[in-house]
Amino acid sequence: MDMHDLTRELQQANDSKIVMIVADGLGGLPLQPDGKTELETARTPHLDRLAKLGVQGGSIPVKPGIAPGSGPGHLGLFGYDPLQYRIGRGALEATGIGFELQPGDVAIRCNFITIDDAGLITDRRAGRISTEAAAPVVASLRQIKIPDVEVFVEPVKEYRFVVVLRGKGLEGDVADTDPQQTGVPPLDPQATTSGSRRTAEVAKEFLRQAREILRTQAPANFHTMRGFAAKPNLPSFEEVYGLRAASIAVYPMYKGLAHLVGMKNIGRATDLSAQVDVLREAWKDFDFFFLHYKYTDSTGEDGAFDRKVARIEELDAMLPAIETLKPTVLIVTGDHSTPSFLRSHSWHPVPTLLVSDCCRPDLHDTFGERTCVTGGLGLFEAKYLMPLALANAGRLGKYGA
Amino acid sequence: MDMHDLTRELQQANDSKIVMIVADGLGGLPLQPDGKTELETARTPHLDRLAKLGVQGGSIPVKPGIAPGSGPGHLGLFGYDPLQYRIGRGALEATGIGFELQPGDVAIRCNFITIDDAGLITDRRAGRISTEAAAPVVASLRQIKIPDVEVFVEPVKEYRFVVVLRGKGLEGDVADTDPQQTGVPPLDPQATTSGSRRTAEVAKEFLRQAREILRTQAPANFHTMRGFAAKPNLPSFEEVYGLRAASIAVYPMYKGLAHLVGMKNIGRATDLSAQVDVLREAWKDFDFFFLHYKYTDSTGEDGAFDRKVARIEELDAMLPAIETLKPTVLIVTGDHSTPSFLRSHSWHPVPTLLVSDCCRPDLHDTFGERTCVTGGLGLFEAKYLMPLALANAGRLGKYGA
Repeated sequence: MDMHDLTRELQQANDSKIVMIVADGLGGLPLQPDGKTELETARTPHLDRLAKLGVQGGSIPVKPGIAPGSGPGHLGLFGYDPLQYRIGRGALEATGIGFELQPGDVAIRCNFITIDDAGLITDRRAGRISTEAAAPVVASLRQIKIPDVEVFVEPVKEYRFVVVLRGKGLEGDVADTDPQQTGVPPLDPQATTSGSRRTAEVAKEFLRQAREILRTQAPANFHTMRGFAAKPNLPSFEEVYGLRAASIAVYPMYKGLAHLVGMKNIGRATDLSAQVDVLREAWKDFDFFFLHYKYTDSTGEDGAFDRKVARIEELDAMLPAIETLKPTVLIVTGDHSTPSFLRSHSWHPVPTLLVSDCCRPDLHDTFGERTCVTGGLGLFEAKYLMPLALANAGRLGKYGA
Repeated sequence: MDMHDLTRELQQANDSKIVMIVADGLGGLPLQPDGKTELETARTPHLDRLAKLGVQGGSIPVKPGIAPGSGPGHLGLFGYDPLQYRIGRGALEATGIGFELQPGDVAIRCNFITIDDAGLITDRRAGRISTEAAAPVVASLRQIKIPDVEVFVEPVKEYRFVVVLRGKGLEGDVADTDPQQTGVPPLDPQATTSGSRRTAEVAKEFLRQAREILRTQAPANFHTMRGFAAKPNLPSFEEVYGLRAASIAVYPMYKGLAHLVGMKNIGRATDLSAQVDVLREAWKDFDFFFLHYKYTDSTGEDGAFDRKVARIEELDAMLPAIETLKPTVLIVTGDHSTPSFLRSHSWHPVPTLLVSDCCRPDLHDTFGERTCVTGGLGLFEAKYLMPLALANAGRLGKYGA
């Protein structure tokens, strides 16, 4: 029995509102052993005040020691066991550009490549062609027509683009056509299960037409296909939690991830202040709000300790505006840590704060990496955050009599 | 491999004594964010003294966010994964009135109903007939005879009673006869698996005779059958832990739960002082004692903060009498939290204290919701408490060489 079996069985409706603020990559590290982390350094009067009212803990994104990408990081926060649910590479790439996959779609990561007259690969990344130079070449592939299949071709960045095949009887188990070396031809798409044979045939036909179209486009005179993946089969927030859920994100990747679990992407905010405006306007229409804040991650990736501190302070300053809406449950967390010391995602537990009238406050009056370990939520796997949110919102009945 | 596979393999006998005091619903909440919980408010000199000698932690009854009923709450404390072992509704109802189910028994929850001359239901609860008025009607059903089946009919409360069928070849997979609406006749019992066909036939015969007997007993002139359930297949304490276990409880539900895991219900105590007398008298005859204290839950359910505080102090005062028996391992815990603020069972971790000469005391000298989080046991799932008890009693050998 997994947690979703439980939440399906125990969910009960009420008028509560849950707000989950995900400060991407929130957790950090000190620059010296006796130093403070970015969050501990930041002046965060509102988080500290909420820490007094709330309960904190350290969210382990996947398992101890495992640093997740954005996909598993968010799946965990959304209550989907990131080891049970995996988003295939192609589906994640499509999701990352905000493409809303439909059930039955197959998404494929494509690289432009350079081939010689004999059809042998001379460059697996087509000279790292620029995003601008690639754009018209990507667009030219949209003339490809395949009977009974709708074809989408979308640029990603530089030599990378995405193809999505939409039609009946398509599955995602097809091997990569990238041979991982130069001096050899690309491989033909090969189905690895009988259910994916038609996908392999469609991909082969796509490649045949692409070869014609791209012939004169060197260095981007052909492409490989990798990471074939069907839309992951994730049950929806509505079904597993009984929540009408909205996503308020700025960047396509997070909109895409929210869409995969059935959240509705609302608004067109491009900064935090506008995101809060969207939240306010949609307050009556949803039960759950996912609000994504990117800059705690990007500054961490840049190794910019001070800028990450400033971004945390910026988030802190926005909290009172959210509190005036009086959410039943207010959560501040992150999908993983991104310490500027490491300039990358990490495995460290993510400081997580939950405030409700029945949260059982702990003894802390500040919020940070060192306090969260001894907070009332202790160290916990991210996938348990949603059951805790539902319980604090009074949305879970008793298990067993 | 589950924990019982481990304890089966590693268990070793000795003369140790384990006492587990379950203060039902022990955990609580403050009434204001900066307030104290019931346990933190109570004057508990003995628990505090034991906190200095012992190690504490927060027991998560099932999983984070999940509030359990008494059944799963106690199964967890007894070391039975409450998600793996589920007690069917009928079996729990029989257990709740202290009926000792035998392997192969099928228990059924019954409601008296009112039907009209056409056999259509006019009241699904027979006018909520009183317990006193129902008693002779329940008794009248004991004249029902079915070949090769022993039939038990036991009152529960008001319009509710329990039927237990005992005989060969009976399984519990039979659908409810309650159509969940009035103006229609009750359904016939239908087996949902082939193994339960005989149960359905027996139930049909029971209903046929009941209809005759009840014909003149309006408003209780018929009854429905719901929650058919076989005795849950729980391995015994003796088998999984090598413990001769005794239960010293006042209320039928807890006696019933203890019986399901093979504990022997001893004594006829009706208060805590008498329970301790029973404990003392039986000290030589058992290895493990479960002592159940109800009033920390019932006062919580009543929303009576001060009365719950007083009940905790009452329990505290009884501890020295138990300590004089010199248990090898003394545990004070609860099956779940019942904060008077919520007036219901909750998901919050339950303060749990374990004292033995090898428990590795932590740094706390008080016992409560806020200290237990940073105690030496940390936050842990209730199902791990029994292995910890066995280890502290020297009853578990080394795993692997």
